[in-house]
Amino acid sequence: MPNVRRAVVLLSGGLDSAVVLASALRDGFEPHAISFDYHQRHRAELLAAQRVAESLGVPASRRRVVRIALEAIGGSSLTSADLEVPKDRGHEEMASGVPSTYVPARNLVFLSIAAGLAETVGSSDLYIGVNAVDYSGYPDCREEFIRAFEAAANLGTRAGTQDRRAFSVHVPLVRLRKAEIIKLGVELGVDFSLTHSCYDPIERAGATLACGRCDSCRLRSQGFADAGVADPTRYA
Amino acid sequence: MPNVRRAVVLLSGGLDSAVVLASALRDGFEPHAISFDYHQRHRAELLAAQRVAESLGVPASRRRVVRIALEAIGGSSLTSADLEVPKDRGHEEMASGVPSTYVPARNLVFLSIAAGLAETVGSSDLYIGVNAVDYSGYPDCREEFIRAFEAAANLGTRAGTQDRRAFSVHVPLVRLRKAEIIKLGVELGVDFSLTHSCYDPIERAGATLACGRCDSCRLRSQGFADAGVADPTRYA
Repeated sequence: MPNVRRAVVLLSGGLDSAVVLASALRDGFEPHAISFDYHQRHRAELLAAQRVAESLGVPASRRRVVRIALEAIGGSSLTSADLEVPKDRGHEEMASGVPSTYVPARNLVFLSIAAGLAETVGSSDLYIGVNAVDYSGYPDCREEFIRAFEAAANLGTRAGTQDRRAFSVHVPLVRLRKAEIIKLGVELGVDFSLTHSCYDPIERAGATLACGRCDSCRLRSQGFADAGVADPTRYA
Repeated sequence: MPNVRRAVVLLSGGLDSAVVLASALRDGFEPHAISFDYHQRHRAELLAAQRVAESLGVPASRRRVVRIALEAIGGSSLTSADLEVPKDRGHEEMASGVPSTYVPARNLVFLSIAAGLAETVGSSDLYIGVNAVDYSGYPDCREEFIRAFEAAANLGTRAGTQDRRAFSVHVPLVRLRKAEIIKLGVELGVDFSLTHSCYDPIERAGATLACGRCDSCRLRSQGFADAGVADPTRYA
């Protein structure tokens, strides 16, 4: 292969991850998209991930959906039907601690599997759409966690030890506000109508509609408003 | 609850993990066993994990098998039928690099999920049977990796941040030779006839027989010989 630089991109199908995939392309990488089916309430995002990848020219051979039974662990309103997704929270409330939508160790698990995939495709670059500004209270979205993860991945993999390819986790969105992420996506040609952000979507007449009230919907719609970009989301 | 100290124990069903579970009990923890169905060639070990847990008094309510589709990532002779498990290797050969039985980022993935389970059961103690002496060339079995993982888990979880319960990963076997592990297991009442170590077992007449030739079988049988303990393994 003539010097292809590959990157593994964590693609949830949400707004942020779509911009991250476009960023990896902008940076000159051949992206390999990885999505996770972890019994999330909003598995509609997996279809969104597929649409986003297709629209940005990532062929099926470079897309993977990995099933992990995180429902066996529980502890989150995103994976347990008996816990409710919080609704109609203001910014202050969102910033006041770790919400029930937190999935225990999720980004640690996702990045670990992505590191494994990177080893098998000969890459040591990972892209993830964590964001520490419009902070929804998730500890695993902070840059200091990402750097600690890199250190662990470098010590715990063949790539990092025998092959001496140090992992680099790219976090292009980490210091951007939601409105800035949206503007960047527009610049990079992301079609946001293909993305899905809602934690608790409603299926109606064959369509998947966003609830408009969960933290994820609220951050997203505020972001479009702040960016002065028309919000293509179909709300219930 | 009257001060129950819980620990999450990674229980593969192999010899080492059985001794680790017994060690957690010795240390006064209420163990929660987690096993992984990752499409491993030797899924017979999952039955062994169940037998071992039962024999050491861990009820079904404190045992979990988590399915992760690591075959979607590939890159290992343990998860891909088209790669062969190496056989009849001497100690020198075993120590000469990362073998094809290495599963990309496996312990990183397993520990991450275990950390998630620990959060949901209210524990911050993990037990894992890594071993750096009879080193089979796996980078993720070294103590420096384990300490780096702890740091990442502490930054990337609610337990480690909001709840300020620092994760502690216990590695009771890390500096023991296989023969010493076996002697410790005997002391702690482990029934090794219930354990399964072979990477490439043979099913014959309803029984699961060990191949006797993979690295795992060779280290195990040498360990019993060195310990002067009768080897209860049924070889093909």
